[in-house]
Amino acid sequence: MSGDNLAAVLHGPLDVRFEKIPIPEPSHNEVMLCMGSVGICGSDIKYWQTGKCGRFTVEAPMVMGHEAAGTVVKVGPGVHDLKAGDRVAVEPGVPCRTCHLCKTGKYNLCKDVSFCATPPDDGNMCKFYKHPADFCFKLPDKVSLDEGAMLEPLAVAVYSCKRGEVGPGSHVLICGAGPVGILAMMVAKQMGATSVLLTDISENRLAVAKSLGASHVIKVSTDDPKELANQIEATMGCQPNVSIECSAVDFSFRTAIYATYPGGSIVMVGRGSFDVTIPYTIAATKEVDIKGIFRYANCYPAALEFVSSGAVDVKSLITHHFPLLDTVEAFKTAKSPDSNAMKVIIHCDQ
Amino acid sequence: MSGDNLAAVLHGPLDVRFEKIPIPEPSHNEVMLCMGSVGICGSDIKYWQTGKCGRFTVEAPMVMGHEAAGTVVKVGPGVHDLKAGDRVAVEPGVPCRTCHLCKTGKYNLCKDVSFCATPPDDGNMCKFYKHPADFCFKLPDKVSLDEGAMLEPLAVAVYSCKRGEVGPGSHVLICGAGPVGILAMMVAKQMGATSVLLTDISENRLAVAKSLGASHVIKVSTDDPKELANQIEATMGCQPNVSIECSAVDFSFRTAIYATYPGGSIVMVGRGSFDVTIPYTIAATKEVDIKGIFRYANCYPAALEFVSSGAVDVKSLITHHFPLLDTVEAFKTAKSPDSNAMKVIIHCDQ
Amino acid sequence: MSGDNLAAVLHGPLDVRFEKIPIPEPSHNEVMLCMGSVGICGSDIKYWQTGKCGRFTVEAPMVMGHEAAGTVVKVGPGVHDLKAGDRVAVEPGVPCRTCHLCKTGKYNLCKDVSFCATPPDDGNMCKFYKHPADFCFKLPDKVSLDEGAMLEPLAVAVYSCKRGEVGPGSHVLICGAGPVGILAMMVAKQMGATSVLLTDISENRLAVAKSLGASHVIKVSTDDPKELANQIEATMGCQPNVSIECSAVDFSFRTAIYATYPGGSIVMVGRGSFDVTIPYTIAATKEVDIKGIFRYANCYPAALEFVSSGAVDVKSLITHHFPLLDTVEAFKTAKSPDSNAMKVIIHCDQ
Amino acid sequence: MSGDNLAAVLHGPLDVRFEKIPIPEPSHNEVMLCMGSVGICGSDIKYWQTGKCGRFTVEAPMVMGHEAAGTVVKVGPGVHDLKAGDRVAVEPGVPCRTCHLCKTGKYNLCKDVSFCATPPDDGNMCKFYKHPADFCFKLPDKVSLDEGAMLEPLAVAVYSCKRGEVGPGSHVLICGAGPVGILAMMVAKQMGATSVLLTDISENRLAVAKSLGASHVIKVSTDDPKELANQIEATMGCQPNVSIECSAVDFSFRTAIYATYPGGSIVMVGRGSFDVTIPYTIAATKEVDIKGIFRYANCYPAALEFVSSGAVDVKSLITHHFPLLDTVEAFKTAKSPDSNAMKVIIHCDQ
Repeated sequence: MSGDNLAAVLHGPLDVRFEKIPIPEPSHNEVMLCMGSVGICGSDIKYWQTGKCGRFTVEAPMVMGHEAAGTVVKVGPGVHDLKAGDRVAVEPGVPCRTCHLCKTGKYNLCKDVSFCATPPDDGNMCKFYKHPADFCFKLPDKVSLDEGAMLEPLAVAVYSCKRGEVGPGSHVLICGAGPVGILAMMVAKQMGATSVLLTDISENRLAVAKSLGASHVIKVSTDDPKELANQIEATMGCQPNVSIECSAVDFSFRTAIYATYPGGSIVMVGRGSFDVTIPYTIAATKEVDIKGIFRYANCYPAALEFVSSGAVDVKSLITHHFPLLDTVEAFKTAKSPDSNAMKVIIHCDQ
Repeated sequence: MSGDNLAAVLHGPLDVRFEKIPIPEPSHNEVMLCMGSVGICGSDIKYWQTGKCGRFTVEAPMVMGHEAAGTVVKVGPGVHDLKAGDRVAVEPGVPCRTCHLCKTGKYNLCKDVSFCATPPDDGNMCKFYKHPADFCFKLPDKVSLDEGAMLEPLAVAVYSCKRGEVGPGSHVLICGAGPVGILAMMVAKQMGATSVLLTDISENRLAVAKSLGASHVIKVSTDDPKELANQIEATMGCQPNVSIECSAVDFSFRTAIYATYPGGSIVMVGRGSFDVTIPYTIAATKEVDIKGIFRYANCYPAALEFVSSGAVDVKSLITHHFPLLDTVEAFKTAKSPDSNAMKVIIHCDQ
Repeated sequence: MSGDNLAAVLHGPLDVRFEKIPIPEPSHNEVMLCMGSVGICGSDIKYWQTGKCGRFTVEAPMVMGHEAAGTVVKVGPGVHDLKAGDRVAVEPGVPCRTCHLCKTGKYNLCKDVSFCATPPDDGNMCKFYKHPADFCFKLPDKVSLDEGAMLEPLAVAVYSCKRGEVGPGSHVLICGAGPVGILAMMVAKQMGATSVLLTDISENRLAVAKSLGASHVIKVSTDDPKELANQIEATMGCQPNVSIECSAVDFSFRTAIYATYPGGSIVMVGRGSFDVTIPYTIAATKEVDIKGIFRYANCYPAALEFVSSGAVDVKSLITHHFPLLDTVEAFKTAKSPDSNAMKVIIHCDQ
Repeated sequence: MSGDNLAAVLHGPLDVRFEKIPIPEPSHNEVMLCMGSVGICGSDIKYWQTGKCGRFTVEAPMVMGHEAAGTVVKVGPGVHDLKAGDRVAVEPGVPCRTCHLCKTGKYNLCKDVSFCATPPDDGNMCKFYKHPADFCFKLPDKVSLDEGAMLEPLAVAVYSCKRGEVGPGSHVLICGAGPVGILAMMVAKQMGATSVLLTDISENRLAVAKSLGASHVIKVSTDDPKELANQIEATMGCQPNVSIECSAVDFSFRTAIYATYPGGSIVMVGRGSFDVTIPYTIAATKEVDIKGIFRYANCYPAALEFVSSGAVDVKSLITHHFPLLDTVEAFKTAKSPDSNAMKVIIHCDQ
């Protein structure tokens, strides 16, 4: 555990600094990790560009990063299932464990949750980081730290498909062919979906989706949601019974309401405008259930199973790698449409 | 079975005519009824005033009425559970029984459903009417035909509470203290809700709700949904975990999204504008499930149980009675705010 | 907080001693209580008589009692929702909060749960006792400590009805009219059941059940489960769609399988023989789901709501009261059929 | 439609006769089929050997066969979705469509269901056969009639996995590596299970299971269910959270209760003894839900999707083929352990 604890710290918009922070000491049920791979998420980009994301604002310097995996260096008291040398994926949100929502299994909705790189909580784009042991998931030998970092967006995908009740014979519409949309496609197929259609405005992303197993893709070229809904039905040969909105575009959400089969579900993964106008009568009359998701709960175990069994190939989405000190370059790459980046990984140990 | 079959037939806006129609003959699995009580619903008023309701338009003369109860006069072949003289409530929507939605128990979503007094299907504001036997529910001696007619809105209430997953300890918000809202309040309490708050702009309706068991009422006096949501939480002492929107007012729906406890449900009973603007981010982040309802499926048995056991007193909502030939007067009464009408009943046998 | 901490300590079969034990000091998230009312449960009787209950054996002196309510004397660090003087009901099982079962809301199945008066964990038949604050539920002024103690068996009843999916229009069979059976009847009615039938071999218990709201009762007088199932159907006018086995008699469980409506549920509350012979083919063919329960999870809030709203009158089941030093007399009373005891309460503050 | 309607008719134990029966005429919503492939099921063998199966007895001559596919020859009135020449799989159970169970989507539990080759209903081991159109599922060009016949056992497998709530990350125990067990394994993997272990006493069947994708197999060599449960946990590295009993052996069911993870499910597919002794306390304490299944409901669509998408390779289980007139030889083959038969198909058009 020699060496300094170098961290990528966001001080404000476009102001990332590489600073030495204290090396943390693990308390009861905690482990101290030497961080390996940390993926860049859309929220990281928003914080970097604007200092804000959703209802959160960076008001004090904050270590970035929340899609992470590392190696246990030291365990605190009461830790029995992990030991130094174990490689783990880090589930970044740690709830209070005592409120009604935590006790009923919805710990992601805990109002006192601490979540990596969400103000005021620090993330793990740094060398040394401590975390509760039960929110660290031991990686089998065959699963790399890069794959471990990918469990975070994969957990979002698993949760989306569970909330949407994807099952045997499902026909699934996924709006948006970014990393989460493509991972949701992969997961949906593993849960029994027999056809999955993705929409996007990027031909590159749709090509990636197709190469990774999408049954159908549609490049969106209309601004009429009913027209797109009709195209979707014509292409799939039926209405999708589950729709997963990952594009953060209001139009996609409206399209999903028109497109979905009566009695089906729509899952709100993307975050578009604060206020969105929906065809209320259509949603009500078809009894389409509209379900929000906030991160995930209890999805890391299944995500890890999918990766370690080989069922879901998360590596295929990783397009770029950077060492910690090149984090700003990594953000630029992740943001640029020209880079064709899907998932960019920061290596904190490089 | 002497006598003519007099019917209240809608020919267009404000054009109800009392006409003799053919006496129907029951086919296989059908019964012929002598109609007794038929309640007036908001949709009847809309058809009468405009010739339209939602996506439906009256394009040919249509017998009105769908909240109905009558007495079996004759049974067709294959009917074993009913006999002449039995008094029954009529579940007005008869599905195809062969499509996927019918087979999975969601027969209300069947696209080939035939529903009383929804164009082009005739209703039962008439003397003689035939209906499939399995959509007729035999009333015990102690349940009156008026109560039988009330099973229709009560079925909506039961379905709303089921879709909202009302259960032990639930705190329920109901927007709109009309008949369905008040029935939903009564049902919610029977399903274990320990507090139910109703909102409305009518002091009279709220007074009725309070007298019939509402835990709390709020007369809406703000146009800020967040402010009303705060009032609701302050009054209940907690956020409602189930919200049932029965007011058909967009503002109420937005309020429900702000008001509902994380992980809870909102049920869309009322039909306001076609397009409604919702605080999407709030709904998504709190994981509030937004659930449409279209009529109901499999709710008449429970509705009948509630009435016959005395658990739900539907009679308390019946404020006015008219004979068939005074149907227009009945519509005017049902529509007028000054009448303080809750439920108006037409007696086809008078 | 003057005074000694007197406790009812079980040293072995029929060997209860009243001893002074150390006064506990509340740690983080804990409160120290001055105990008030503690109910006697069947498991207490078994421990007292045999030193054993189920798979547990008293191997070291153990303070008895787990159906308890008391008054907060002192709060530990991090306790914000309770203060000295608050009266609380004690949920007796405290789980590890970190295992998969805890995180998914099934904390009652946590293998590291600590449960009052289950070896090796002490209970709360004593003067001073400490407990995690989030497993203490503040009683409103109108709810007495006796009622607070009754929340424990009421939580079992709530959990049983939830597991059995009691809902609007349910017809419920409850085998065994002891305290839990009768509470389950009361809860089932609050969750929408329109008829509840209880069976027992004790006329006194059935009379109590009837006086407290049972729709039907049957005094069991046959040893043929099919015959009893037929009696149940004849009495209810239909097969029950939910059966809750609270009698701990194998015959009752077999009867429930014969009696239950296809697609219904049977809940295993009672613990009869280790091995039980069931009519497997009947259960399988009817698709009757057989569901075990182990204590309860997340049921205290609803139980408290039912009591504070007046919906469930738990006081009506309390038949006897004893001060702490008369605990042995209390056990004898609880055990004796001649006492007609339903629930016996020990008052630790007397 | 020239030619006689030759049928394999069972007159009693070991008494199959090949007889000409009337050519049926399709009524409303019916189609007349020229039968192609019909699989042999365990129940067929039982009827052939003993004249009985479960609670059913052959009391009059009965055409055998219920796992069937054929080609539409003629359609009755009201049939819109099928036409002459369409190849279809036949879902063999046709319910009343009007009872409460039918209306709630549990049509398999309808007490008036008519099921092919279950007394007194004839099956479809014949040349011409008529069936309701909505219980015939059109096969795409790439799906053969043999595969169509396999949809029947596949539907059992789909239903078992749905009832067991197999999902992402599930670990599944399947007792019995016959056709249904192996199909359940294939389906479980398609629904997200990451490991599936099969048990059997036949090394050949286990070898087939392994070659078709089982994660683990265990040849049962103990008569102590706890010992086998321990072997299962050691082999899987965890307790299975879903167990599917397909062996019709009581010992397997007891093993499943010991083996299953707390809060998991056990599905009763096999039918062993009428009465089975279970470790009741273990099932209750672990809250393992025990779920019967009776055939299936609404599973043909998903089964067909799995076959047509190539996700489930049902052909790999077909080991033998016989023309209709060799039905007795086919039964002998299906029954003989030496044949290593998995699924034997009768070709009615040969």
